[in-house]
This record gives sequence, structure tokens and C-alpha cells, in this order.
Amino acid sequence: MGIEIERRFLVTGEAWRGGVTEACRLDQGYLAREDRVTVRVRVAGAAAKLTIKGPGGLVRPEFEYPVPLQDAEAMLATLCGGRRVAKTRHLVPHGGLTWEVDVFEGPLAGLVIAEVELPAADHPLALPAWAGREVTDDARYSNAVLASLDAPPRG
Amino acid sequence: MGIEIERRFLVTGEAWRGGVTEACRLDQGYLAREDRVTVRVRVAGAAAKLTIKGPGGLVRPEFEYPVPLQDAEAMLATLCGGRRVAKTRHLVPHGGLTWEVDVFEGPLAGLVIAEVELPAADHPLALPAWAGREVTDDARYSNAVLASLDAPPRG
Repeated sequence: MGIEIERRFLVTGEAWRGGVTEACRLDQGYLAREDRVTVRVRVAGAAAKLTIKGPGGLVRPEFEYPVPLQDAEAMLATLCGGRRVAKTRHLVPHGGLTWEVDVFEGPLAGLVIAEVELPAADHPLALPAWAGREVTDDARYSNAVLASLDAPPRG
Repeated sequence: MGIEIERRFLVTGEAWRGGVTEACRLDQGYLAREDRVTVRVRVAGAAAKLTIKGPGGLVRPEFEYPVPLQDAEAMLATLCGGRRVAKTRHLVPHGGLTWEVDVFEGPLAGLVIAEVELPAADHPLALPAWAGREVTDDARYSNAVLASLDAPPRG
């Protein structure tokens, strides 16, 4: 079992692009999305994993396991019922932490969200200039909810 | 990816007990149960696994992965919201196949269901005398639904 402690922000502007050290495309879908639990399958290049997250906000229980790529692709194609998200994830080191800047594609094009994992819930966070409004507790911006939208949320 | 081809029957009487070759106690819970997908975590002795099943009936897509026991116990305790089933599974060879006779415990005490996995959907099946009504397509008797009941289904 793990605990995910993560804060999330909308991204303003393009200045973050200057700090990118790595990028990869993620194709993920939701096998289940209930009040308590989401079950996600994600393909990143030749690697795939299955992730179970408990109730969220800032601190969430998280269980993650590698799965065969072929299984993940079959689950994405047949068991996610269209609840899918495609995005390119950019790693951007800032203030001693690695931020992940996700540029969404398809119906969510235009949406850019930055996530940062913290070693503790009260860990001080030096916000980069391009971090806009915090959406950690705004369920509309969770990937599990975004996966069902046909356009980015407004506001 | 796998495909599970399984038929399920209510069990009448106790004659099956004479054929038991092995038994083990299963403690399982449901992380998610949606129309299309169920996500189950199961502990059997010191082994645990996570199972994703697609839409059912007789033939269901199924993906299964071993997980650490400690993870499984944490998921059972915190993420299943009481949707749990405890039962003892008995293996009973019959007619060239291995039947699994599940004796439920707790609120489902009194319920006994026999399952048999088939190599093909049209595989001929020699029914043992203790196999009663078939419930393969009766969703009330799926373990995912049983997990939320406070008594065995009637009829």
C-alpha cells in the first residue's frame, strides 16, 4: 500500500516548457469510478500499470501494479466504456520537486494541469510562476472525471 | 487477458462432501462493481490477487494479478465498503472437470454454490447429482452482488 500526497494546479502560459527534462505520452482509462475508489489502467510507451486509488483530495491511498501491455490495451479497448484520457506528461523540476505538467489531447485539448507529489501533506511548496489556480480539491479536474467529458471544465 | 467460461449451480444436499480433494478459505471484497466491470481482491491463505472481470454471464473477460498480501488486506479493510464475502471453497473432481463448491459464511450462511470452469462455452457438462438449479445468468447469485446482501437470495 502506498499513500499519494499530491497537489494539482491549472497551468498558465507556456513558460514551463523551458524547464522540461522529459516527456512521455500517456493513454489511460477508467475501469471503475465509484465514490470511494477509482481503478485506472495506464499505458506509457511499452509499460502498463493498474492503479487503484482510494478517496481523494490531497492525501489518497494508492495501490499500483505493473500489468502486461497486451492486457492493458485490451482493458482500455473493452472495459473502460469510453472513459479515457490521452495526454503528454512533461517532467519539470522546480524547487527541489519534480512537477508533472500534463497537456491533454482530444476533447480535452487546451487543458494543462500540473501535479506535484509531496513527501508530506504539510511539505512547503515553492509554486512556479506558471502554477495557476489550485484544483487539488476540485473533483471536476480529477482525471477520472475528465475522462468522461467532451470538453475541458469551465472556470 | 483471459476469458472465464464458467457455469454456476445451486447445490442440494451434502453428497458432494464425499468427493472433496482440497479446501481453502477465501476472503474477498469488491473494490468496484459497475455494469461493465467488477474489481475484486481476494485473500486465500498467504496468497492474494486482484481480479478484473468484464460483463458476465457464461463467458467473461478476466484479468488476474497477484498482489502483496498486505496490500490485499488493506484494500479489503478500507476500500471495499463492506462489500465482502467469506466462504470456504472445496474442490470436487467430477466428470473430468474440477468443480468448486463454495460454502458461504456470515450473513450468507446456508448458501452453497458450485462453479465449474469450462474449456469452451459449448463443452458438454456431466452434472453431478448434487447440482441443483443453474444460476449462471442469475445476477443475484454473482459474488459481487452477494457481497452486499445481509441474507442469501430467496428462490
